[in-house]
Amino acid sequence: MNSLKTRRTIRRYRSEDVPATLLGDLLESACRASTVGNMQTYSVVVTRDAARKAALAPAHFNQPMVQTAPLVLTFCIDLHRFSLWCEQRKATPGYNNFEWFVTGAVDTLLAAQTFCVAAEEAGLGICYLGTTTYNAQQIIDALKLPELVFPITTITVGYPDETPEQPDRLPLEAIVHDEYYHDYTPDSINRLYAFKEALPENLRFVRENNKETLAQVFTDIRYTKADSEHFSRALWEAMKKQGF
Amino acid sequence: MNSLKTRRTIRRYRSEDVPATLLGDLLESACRASTVGNMQTYSVVVTRDAARKAALAPAHFNQPMVQTAPLVLTFCIDLHRFSLWCEQRKATPGYNNFEWFVTGAVDTLLAAQTFCVAAEEAGLGICYLGTTTYNAQQIIDALKLPELVFPITTITVGYPDETPEQPDRLPLEAIVHDEYYHDYTPDSINRLYAFKEALPENLRFVRENNKETLAQVFTDIRYTKADSEHFSRALWEAMKKQGF
Repeated sequence: MNSLKTRRTIRRYRSEDVPATLLGDLLESACRASTVGNMQTYSVVVTRDAARKAALAPAHFNQPMVQTAPLVLTFCIDLHRFSLWCEQRKATPGYNNFEWFVTGAVDTLLAAQTFCVAAEEAGLGICYLGTTTYNAQQIIDALKLPELVFPITTITVGYPDETPEQPDRLPLEAIVHDEYYHDYTPDSINRLYAFKEALPENLRFVRENNKETLAQVFTDIRYTKADSEHFSRALWEAMKKQGF
Repeated sequence: MNSLKTRRTIRRYRSEDVPATLLGDLLESACRASTVGNMQTYSVVVTRDAARKAALAPAHFNQPMVQTAPLVLTFCIDLHRFSLWCEQRKATPGYNNFEWFVTGAVDTLLAAQTFCVAAEEAGLGICYLGTTTYNAQQIIDALKLPELVFPITTITVGYPDETPEQPDRLPLEAIVHDEYYHDYTPDSINRLYAFKEALPENLRFVRENNKETLAQVFTDIRYTKADSEHFSRALWEAMKKQGF
């Protein structure tokens, strides 16, 4: 399992297809992830067709991987299937609410990440698309998702055609808290972010964007408050429209 | 990676401790999971102390694993650390909203599941506690989580002291949709749930609970509409109180 430590996100893929048997095998592994009450409150939409990928691309801000990867997998919270089963069995489902949106998201993401670990172990490369929750409504429309089904993440999959550098991570002490949450101090923040801030590519981002600090590259350019608030409203509305 | 397919949740643990070096190694692997913008919007609270586990137990409805597992890991969405860094660097963070609650949850759950895969590969057993979102406010209080930190899942960890049967899963065709979502029909629902409904333990659940169908065991006993609506309100309030 050294691959867990040496992994990196892959955005460029060879044209070679992913065999259907391998895909099925990886999805079987994904479905072995823990799931609340063994309810499996998720569905996976597998997109291979070029026209369908093109229809999904705008929702992902036309990031090229959506059209160049042989496989695009949209992992969806799904309380629809379970609710249908209940209704067919003289049972009244109560899963159209916020708790099950979040519980379903947990289920779905454990399956998604298990898929990715298995895929990387099989020599494939993957890339998560965070844009899934930005433009959920477009994805719902493109994939014809019914009520109580909601796209929570998307993964592009294929055989790697690049070997990018592994990105930095914060030191473990930034992430792990013993027994309870120990709040950060100005000194600890300085220490924990020092390595990241000193990286040549990050110094370049600051310079190229005419910013004073790396943090400003995030707040002013990559993930602005205005965008986040816009996407929050859209996400909330899409969630409500899907019946949660 | 056959362990992904043969895994099962472990609820009974040997008293043997998990070495700190092994735990550190597993957490390093977890932090290699994909993360939005390399922001690592999560924290992990590691509970080993018996008194602290006892304080967490009621939030998890006193499921015994919380006190009998050598390790309890609470995986938290964390936009606090990143926001602190921004504020210390003349940058104005805009991460106190619903979009970042969901984006943070994605980040956190990919790390949590990577931890679990690595832990199982190392011979440990894990159990996810879905109760984390039911009683989030109690966990927030017990772990002293500041604003913009939110517990999304909990994992108990230890060396297995049981070898339970592997539970059933729905057939893959229940989960996977080619190109777009193909809605279920009454016939397909019957077919996809037939195996689960015919399992001896499920027939026993129906009988013991004086129910007509297995679905009623879920809707009337395990996960009722009234409970779900109660937990939805509590989750929403806790999320708002934490500043999202």
